[in-house]
Amino acid sequence: MSTTSKGEKTREHILKATRKILVAKGFHNTSISTVIEATGVKKGNLYYHFASKEDLGLAVLEDAKDEFFSFLAKALTGRDPIEKIINSCKAIFTEQVKNNFVGGCLFGNTALEMTDSNQKFSQVIQEVFSRWTGLLEEHLGEARETGMLPASIQPRLLAKTVVATMEGAIMISRVSKDKDDLNDFLAVITGLLGR
Amino acid sequence: MSTTSKGEKTREHILKATRKILVAKGFHNTSISTVIEATGVKKGNLYYHFASKEDLGLAVLEDAKDEFFSFLAKALTGRDPIEKIINSCKAIFTEQVKNNFVGGCLFGNTALEMTDSNQKFSQVIQEVFSRWTGLLEEHLGEARETGMLPASIQPRLLAKTVVATMEGAIMISRVSKDKDDLNDFLAVITGLLGR
Repeated sequence: MSTTSKGEKTREHILKATRKILVAKGFHNTSISTVIEATGVKKGNLYYHFASKEDLGLAVLEDAKDEFFSFLAKALTGRDPIEKIINSCKAIFTEQVKNNFVGGCLFGNTALEMTDSNQKFSQVIQEVFSRWTGLLEEHLGEARETGMLPASIQPRLLAKTVVATMEGAIMISRVSKDKDDLNDFLAVITGLLGR
Repeated sequence: MSTTSKGEKTREHILKATRKILVAKGFHNTSISTVIEATGVKKGNLYYHFASKEDLGLAVLEDAKDEFFSFLAKALTGRDPIEKIINSCKAIFTEQVKNNFVGGCLFGNTALEMTDSNQKFSQVIQEVFSRWTGLLEEHLGEARETGMLPASIQPRLLAKTVVATMEGAIMISRVSKDKDDLNDFLAVITGLLGR
């Protein structure tokens, strides 16, 4: 094993372990010593990979962003663009249920915790929301062009609505811990998309 | 001035000041000493009104809940139930802009921070979401009965969607700080309600 790959493995290990902590406790409430304890990585090694707690937090967000868009690309499957979107929403909700509604959406959580105080965090999260919206917009545009949606539909507005409804749905179902809530929201999104 | 009313005034003062801090910093990140500093209230006096930080946090949520439903009752004005709902959403968004998108929704924020760890907080927030949904559901039911909405509409589902879209919209616009985002979401909600 080369040194680089060992270093990369350590970095990866720190990122995944810290993400779990951030999802559970938020950024402010997570200390570097909690990360050291959870990862078993020595302090010097941690600081070798991440210069500060802010750097670590940003790297976790970037890593989660990449993972989310890989997940989304795989989840956007189906016979047509509308089915693809519905299946992607279903896949996201399934993750929620699998996690027993604990944790919710890292981006949403961090948006609410950090966006007023930290421009860098805010920027990554904005990227997530706008890239997600952009992807859905493309699919909706395709659906409109092929007559699957009425010509009066505005793909950008509809895409924003789906993303907002998803974020709101994850928030509300985290509080209710009720699977039926997610089924209701899925029904709503399905309806929004004309199915 | 009677002693009771002075005590009530102090309680009220603590609640409003703490709400501002909680909106800005979250529950975990707020210490009793921060509250003492911000309110100028003596420690003994603070503990006379609230036995613990948890008690104070819950009282702030309850107070904000009452205020929100008074606000909502006033904001639900218009010539018909659909117009009432649209106006109430507009009023909530106007508050967001007035606050320069800072703070967002105390219930949403607390939902994401506290719901996995504290059953009591979770319960108050669940009450807010379900009572808000219930109010909209009543209006939508009335709209359906008078033929303003198609008979196929399910008031409960549509009400849940409006609440989820509102929460998601507040979250997303807090990140983008973009007034146009809120106008888009308002257009979407207006469309959802068939106007």
